[in-house]
Amino acid sequence: MSTYIAPIRDMQFVLNEVAGLEEICGLPGNEECSVDLVESILDEAAKFATGVLDPINKVGDRTGHVCKDGVVTTAPGFKEAYQLFVETGWNAMPFSPEFGGQGLPALVSMAVNEMWKGANMAFGLCPMLTGGAIEAIAHHASDELKQKYLPKMVEGTWTGTMNLTEPNAGSDLAAISSKAKAVGDGTYLVSGTKIFITWGEHDVAENIIHLVLARLPDAPPGLKGISLFLVPKFLVNDDGSLGKRNDLICASIEHKLGIHGSPTAVMSYGENEGAVGYLIGEENKGIGYMFTMMNHARVNVGLEGVGIAERAYQHALWYARERVQGKIIGDTSSDKKTILHHPDVRRMLMDIKSRTEAMRTLAYYAAANIDKAHAGDAAAQARVDLLTPVVKGWSTEQGVELSSTALQVFGGVGFVEETGAAQYYRDSRITTIYEGTTAIQANDLVGRKLAREKVPGAAMKALLAEMTATAQELEGKAELAGIAANLKNGIKALSTAAEWILATYEANPQAVHAGSVPFLKLTGIVVGGWLMAKSAAIAVQHLADGSSDDFYKAKLATATYFAAHQLPFAAAYAAEITGGSDSVFGLAETLF
Amino acid sequence: MSTYIAPIRDMQFVLNEVAGLEEICGLPGNEECSVDLVESILDEAAKFATGVLDPINKVGDRTGHVCKDGVVTTAPGFKEAYQLFVETGWNAMPFSPEFGGQGLPALVSMAVNEMWKGANMAFGLCPMLTGGAIEAIAHHASDELKQKYLPKMVEGTWTGTMNLTEPNAGSDLAAISSKAKAVGDGTYLVSGTKIFITWGEHDVAENIIHLVLARLPDAPPGLKGISLFLVPKFLVNDDGSLGKRNDLICASIEHKLGIHGSPTAVMSYGENEGAVGYLIGEENKGIGYMFTMMNHARVNVGLEGVGIAERAYQHALWYARERVQGKIIGDTSSDKKTILHHPDVRRMLMDIKSRTEAMRTLAYYAAANIDKAHAGDAAAQARVDLLTPVVKGWSTEQGVELSSTALQVFGGVGFVEETGAAQYYRDSRITTIYEGTTAIQANDLVGRKLAREKVPGAAMKALLAEMTATAQELEGKAELAGIAANLKNGIKALSTAAEWILATYEANPQAVHAGSVPFLKLTGIVVGGWLMAKSAAIAVQHLADGSSDDFYKAKLATATYFAAHQLPFAAAYAAEITGGSDSVFGLAETLF
Repeated sequence: MSTYIAPIRDMQFVLNEVAGLEEICGLPGNEECSVDLVESILDEAAKFATGVLDPINKVGDRTGHVCKDGVVTTAPGFKEAYQLFVETGWNAMPFSPEFGGQGLPALVSMAVNEMWKGANMAFGLCPMLTGGAIEAIAHHASDELKQKYLPKMVEGTWTGTMNLTEPNAGSDLAAISSKAKAVGDGTYLVSGTKIFITWGEHDVAENIIHLVLARLPDAPPGLKGISLFLVPKFLVNDDGSLGKRNDLICASIEHKLGIHGSPTAVMSYGENEGAVGYLIGEENKGIGYMFTMMNHARVNVGLEGVGIAERAYQHALWYARERVQGKIIGDTSSDKKTILHHPDVRRMLMDIKSRTEAMRTLAYYAAANIDKAHAGDAAAQARVDLLTPVVKGWSTEQGVELSSTALQVFGGVGFVEETGAAQYYRDSRITTIYEGTTAIQANDLVGRKLAREKVPGAAMKALLAEMTATAQELEGKAELAGIAANLKNGIKALSTAAEWILATYEANPQAVHAGSVPFLKLTGIVVGGWLMAKSAAIAVQHLADGSSDDFYKAKLATATYFAAHQLPFAAAYAAEITGGSDSVFGLAETLF
Repeated sequence: MSTYIAPIRDMQFVLNEVAGLEEICGLPGNEECSVDLVESILDEAAKFATGVLDPINKVGDRTGHVCKDGVVTTAPGFKEAYQLFVETGWNAMPFSPEFGGQGLPALVSMAVNEMWKGANMAFGLCPMLTGGAIEAIAHHASDELKQKYLPKMVEGTWTGTMNLTEPNAGSDLAAISSKAKAVGDGTYLVSGTKIFITWGEHDVAENIIHLVLARLPDAPPGLKGISLFLVPKFLVNDDGSLGKRNDLICASIEHKLGIHGSPTAVMSYGENEGAVGYLIGEENKGIGYMFTMMNHARVNVGLEGVGIAERAYQHALWYARERVQGKIIGDTSSDKKTILHHPDVRRMLMDIKSRTEAMRTLAYYAAANIDKAHAGDAAAQARVDLLTPVVKGWSTEQGVELSSTALQVFGGVGFVEETGAAQYYRDSRITTIYEGTTAIQANDLVGRKLAREKVPGAAMKALLAEMTATAQELEGKAELAGIAANLKNGIKALSTAAEWILATYEANPQAVHAGSVPFLKLTGIVVGGWLMAKSAAIAVQHLADGSSDDFYKAKLATATYFAAHQLPFAAAYAAEITGGSDSVFGLAETLF
């Protein structure tokens, strides 16, 4: 079994040389941040990921947790790991100093969070959900609620959850039927059943702060009648101490394909007198509040695709360096060699490595734009809006595919659970579903982010122009001309598909949405290819300047691979989108 | 939960209208076979699949089997189902009447076997492995061994296994180290450990006939020093009754990602006095014997890709017709509709359906060529040789991908094991590994079947010419011109890639093998696209002739979808192969 090693060199490269960490540290409010500080943070985080989280990843999968009478006991080691996580301050890192956080930029969180996800995705979900709840409270709740709940949540002493889904309200939040009614003293009583609540019940922290979407009695139907409530597991006294148990219980825990270390609860609110809840913000505005936070969560789920692909890669590479099997095609020596020398094993590992690097670069690039947007940069905000569904949808689809490729490297033993490759394959499979399925992301991309944008297509056109400039810059340089040629073809495909969408949407939105997932993948490939091309150019410059750092040679190699093996698929997706929408509806419903 | 329904209409179409069942029934030795007989066989098989095998598929997954002190107890219902399978004559169907079989053509077996695999892949492995052992014995063993073992194996009273893999000999059979020595009375004593033995130990039949690869003391090293032995679990007396237990034991059973209903054993031979074995054929020729049989097994594993994709499709379709969720994009009515109306759900189901049909057509087409080859048709043999790795490699890769798509249709509940979608996803994952990984198939394709063919490229060129003729024929017909255009582009891409391989192989075989898996996928898409185009032409002719059978409309629709959504990827794979081999080796081994 291999050990998770944080890919710090690549992280540093992306942070410093592509995403512009120094610039981000210079933005107002980031004065505490510096390149040196980030370097030491990454080193410490890497130790935590390798030393604490990775060793309990397998037991989380194998043993899972036990649920008895509403009480969940997490897998051995999880409670201790979480407590250490809190004590060492990791939970507080990204949040505002106002509530005890360290206020580090989103860009830095991105690298640190990748480590949690890579080492132990099931564990990483706990702070991720808490973070989402913190965001929602910090942006929308009253000062009283903020003061009462945020310090403990930022610290990590209390965790948070997001309660959206109900049995009949999954992707369609408009169908939510959980209820809330005002008691008259400013509090509410909440009742209803919520499903798929990640870390909805557990024993790692002393209190759980549930954010619950529910309807008030006089609320309008649909999305405009949903309010957001803060519903703590234990009521909190005015002095901050814990009071009585609230009327909510974990009814059961799902038996899932993966992320067994993360308890996914069915939560039942108000089976007796009603669960005491506190309104966040204004009545009937809950969906908007959830969306503020959801965009951030979506980038974080996209990062799970990066983390798990990286981990699966390391594991497969470890095996490929250990396992001696077969004669190497074209090898004239009689030495026995490891399977890393087999052309197809080499191809699989290059494939995972280069595509993971592309996904990482895109995710960090998006995070840098989040930081710039926070500082008031409208263009950066437009870029984030455009790329958020791509980071989420493309990276998770890749994560599933690449963890499958990693399993394939093992051959027969990959199918045996003991090996561990199967766990990454199973764990990754949730990422294209939760926090909005790939189709939800893709529909967001072709709809709100493209065809229904304020100025339709403006954000995409700005991106296409920037990418075209890069391609033109690169084609003059011998080592980069091949990459530039592939990139140009990719940009052309993306541009053609985007133009077709803009021209088609108003008259025939169904036709556009029939190709939304291919369009999302197309965008991911081209933007990923662009960022890898930029990375290659940086590497070539270092090498030309006399650097002997092998890292730059490696970066040029993976970027070249990505351009030759991924960018050609852009044209195929574009053909599917522009020429295939009729055929999606070619079969009458009854003939399926 | 949905019920497995054999896709008889599509099977009949492929058998009768594409693969030429009537012609196959007319071949010497197939006199017993007729189109009508096959129709009733399929009906009966469908009942067995739906009524007996499908209902125990889930319990096989959930409960699995128990192994205690070398004794394996299979999941509830498996023993009874197997006994019924034998009693009703299903096991004997494909084998020679000489040993009690019904001698039906490979083409008919293909359709029947698809049902076993679709309804219960774990169960289907048991007769599949017995079938492989029967083939090897029938072709290579002495008359004495045949008479003693085949009648019971054909009947199914005894099952068979294939013992190839050892801990240090997986894809590399040359590394086999199990030993055998002659006792002097014509028998041998076999010893060694074999792993990944499918149905290696169980309680569904009274005896298990293991075929074991091992080395004699004076054998040359490598592949040319391996002999094949028949090693029964219980020795068989001259009167056919069972004698004493042989010196072999199931040491353990693997804990696998999927196919939990199929016990995968670690087998230990000769821990005490040595396991009594009987040489099959001549000494040191075991590998050749195994390969005879393995080609047949490979087509059958490819068929698992078809069966599991079909099953996953039916399950997802059932859910898409049940589940009401969300407002349909572009729908102006206020009715709540099922998710089948969402463009992306529609796309996913069209994708699974059309690709599964293409895989089915290819597998049956290959089987028809197996039958023709048996009757002495050299061109058919060349076609089978060329397409066997494609049926195996492409269909299984598709099966994994499409069972993932089917899971995605379910959204969140797809990740919950109870739903059942996860089982198909897990079960399918072994198919790209066993019976030779996808890379092994792809290397066979670009090597022995293309570049190192007797006349290099002859079989592929014959196929390309035939496909080109179809495309030319179709482009004149209005309803088929779009399909023809996509097919022509696909053929061009395949032809370009094949020419490049032929031109490159001798000087640089590594470069070719770096693109072997993309080439296998490219071949699958184009040949699948060709067969779907032929199917569409048949459908269009029926419709022109006044048929009101909706099936033909549906076939035209799925073929049109396949052409528009799959064939464009051919060019991308060709670009990867011809322009990307250097970059596979672009990274020094130490820089991974």
